[in-house]
Amino acid sequence: MATAAASSQEHEEAVTCVDFWCNGFGMRARIALREKGVPFAFVEEDLRVRRRSDLVRRMNPVLRSIPILIHGGRPVCGSLNIVEYVDEVWSGGGGRRLLPADPIERARARFWADFVDREVYGAQTRLFTSRGEAKAAAAAELLGHLRRLEAVLGDGAFFGGGELGFLDVALVPFSAMFHGYERHGGVDMAAECPALVRWVARCAERESVRGVLPSGHDMYEIHREFYNIDE
Amino acid sequence: MATAAASSQEHEEAVTCVDFWCNGFGMRARIALREKGVPFAFVEEDLRVRRRSDLVRRMNPVLRSIPILIHGGRPVCGSLNIVEYVDEVWSGGGGRRLLPADPIERARARFWADFVDREVYGAQTRLFTSRGEAKAAAAAELLGHLRRLEAVLGDGAFFGGGELGFLDVALVPFSAMFHGYERHGGVDMAAECPALVRWVARCAERESVRGVLPSGHDMYEIHREFYNIDE
Repeated sequence: MATAAASSQEHEEAVTCVDFWCNGFGMRARIALREKGVPFAFVEEDLRVRRRSDLVRRMNPVLRSIPILIHGGRPVCGSLNIVEYVDEVWSGGGGRRLLPADPIERARARFWADFVDREVYGAQTRLFTSRGEAKAAAAAELLGHLRRLEAVLGDGAFFGGGELGFLDVALVPFSAMFHGYERHGGVDMAAECPALVRWVARCAERESVRGVLPSGHDMYEIHREFYNIDE
Repeated sequence: MATAAASSQEHEEAVTCVDFWCNGFGMRARIALREKGVPFAFVEEDLRVRRRSDLVRRMNPVLRSIPILIHGGRPVCGSLNIVEYVDEVWSGGGGRRLLPADPIERARARFWADFVDREVYGAQTRLFTSRGEAKAAAAAELLGHLRRLEAVLGDGAFFGGGELGFLDVALVPFSAMFHGYERHGGVDMAAECPALVRWVARCAERESVRGVLPSGHDMYEIHREFYNIDE
């Protein structure tokens, strides 16, 4: 009984997500919270302002990065870390888990989420920060990574199988950059990664995703601002 | 009953760890397996040889990195991913969990393990690959990171509290480089991070750690070879 009471109290504690609307990493946290039906306050931290807010400096003094999930006054930092936390805390009441139940499948989902963080994000950043041959190489590398992910998806509706899961949540924010990949990198996503593009449409049918992902146009425009791209 | 049978079978499947003796990331996997008392075959992959073995190319075709845990023929890649997997699969029979039970503490352990991967490893790499002012800056940065970790440890015996846990397993392989930090970077670890040095001694009392960690001398010598340090 003590456990049930504590657990119920934990669920009722205030939840805040500190993030910026176009932060792909932060979108993961917000999608996960919506998937679980957890009400939360969204506190916006404008990444265009150089100095981090006092809230961010207090809640994530080590990295001063966002997103930050604040649950009952206690911070959780790091986007995949937050998704794992949300999946663990709000798992009761027959709630669907985002991570697969099978340890080998969990490991696989975590491996590919890490691949997105390191390889996809790395290539995307190089695409938007380089010119000429380096830019072309980054676009080719990025496309190679996306093709690998398309092969992982295979014939599945989602990476999590029949339903949106951990890797879907980790990757889908990057789809808001597909327009930018086309405009800036000349990558024809519909032709090159048709299954991935169909997967994006499937994800967007979910309220959790639709309510969080900005339009490709808005994402591209703000990234042009971030990266000083004048074209 | 079906679950119990499947679980028992899973535990009996062959376990192999593909790694190189001085790979700090791979030591995590080997320490975790020893902590859980899981018998495993250690297949050595010599990182000084440029071409990866057929086994590595087959089991980790995406990154071709080690360590790789092979369990019943199925690979798990990424060192923290492997530690999580080992903790999940061999958790039965009253086995101690490496990750804390409380979700907020789990998130904290994962946050700091990620900090080790990105910040500590990043600064260590810069220390061994730079010269002059850049090298001094890397040594100062590395020391700052280690002091932060010392503050996280506080008065605790281990990062996991009274017993060796996830973050201990993630960090302790780096202690084999402390000698190298002193020799190459002039960082006086005993004076600068006394609590961390006492923690290393405490970890080394465990068979799992003692059986895996090489000597500081051997680690420094092979890293001199890797980084072409001639001093």
